[in-house]
Amino acid sequence: MVRWEPGAAGRLREAAMALYAEQGYDGTTVAQIADRAGVTARTFFRYFADKREVLFAGSEELERVIADAVIAAPAEAGPMEAVAAGVLAAGEAFVGRRDFARQRYAVVAATPELREREFIKMASLVEAFRAALQERGVAPGRAVLAAETGITVFRVAFERWVEGAEADLVVVIRETLGELSELTS
Amino acid sequence: MVRWEPGAAGRLREAAMALYAEQGYDGTTVAQIADRAGVTARTFFRYFADKREVLFAGSEELERVIADAVIAAPAEAGPMEAVAAGVLAAGEAFVGRRDFARQRYAVVAATPELREREFIKMASLVEAFRAALQERGVAPGRAVLAAETGITVFRVAFERWVEGAEADLVVVIRETLGELSELTS
Repeated sequence: MVRWEPGAAGRLREAAMALYAEQGYDGTTVAQIADRAGVTARTFFRYFADKREVLFAGSEELERVIADAVIAAPAEAGPMEAVAAGVLAAGEAFVGRRDFARQRYAVVAATPELREREFIKMASLVEAFRAALQERGVAPGRAVLAAETGITVFRVAFERWVEGAEADLVVVIRETLGELSELTS
Repeated sequence: MVRWEPGAAGRLREAAMALYAEQGYDGTTVAQIADRAGVTARTFFRYFADKREVLFAGSEELERVIADAVIAAPAEAGPMEAVAAGVLAAGEAFVGRRDFARQRYAVVAATPELREREFIKMASLVEAFRAALQERGVAPGRAVLAAETGITVFRVAFERWVEGAEADLVVVIRETLGELSELTS
């Protein structure tokens, strides 16, 4: 019989983050994370493949959020407006999660293995963006440029958000989009 | 006595690329590369730390080329004009090297370890850009956004160049810069 653990995934995520912050990512084991969350290692592996994936779970969800928003943008919206819709939707996914995002950002920045993994995940977000833009009829070459630009804005805004004082990522994204438009005009 | 091998670095680079294309990156050894280039393994290690670095040598040079061009841009140039100068200077570094660039691109794309290394190198280029822009007096936040945008343009243009018909990377960079300005205005 598999015992269902309500909220176990969230508790595991918080426990992992606390341990990574306290004793470093490399020095933390799955057993310690499970112990801190009050579950067994077996329960850990029901939710996450390994201690790295605790930090990257949810990125497929983010791909979907972006693609859905791009596709749902008004028919008359140009490529960059559709990109903006995707980036803002991604930003909305982080409402109320800045403390977690800050901790995660610090752990990832400090660990080469995680930085590399993060780069790969960003490439997947670009790909989700690009495919959604092409579904809107944007030409392939332009879709790549628009998708890359969208993720660049997202990354820059995200970094500003975790390092800055503004509580709302969506606000920072809007500012960054405006600044990009000013910069390149 | 250390025997100097004229052109050995270039021959090693070409030998490595040919072997990676023929038999894959993972299946190629330093001994094979040295053998193909007609030098000893000892000579290989005088130029490159390992078989991976054969593909990444020259990236510090690229950082310098970008930084120098950004700093040398006219005093009245705005941040994006300085970025354009940096990206175009990087493009000039690839004149006559499209065959090599194409082969290298294919090897890197096919090997996760190399893709990750490439992401890290791109982050160093962003950093070189950012530092040079701040040296021009561009505010830190804006310098990050401009640097990230510059490298995004470079990456997109580079991919178009290795996959397309245009022989000159600088021409593709100019087109991509124009397209970005159109896209974001």
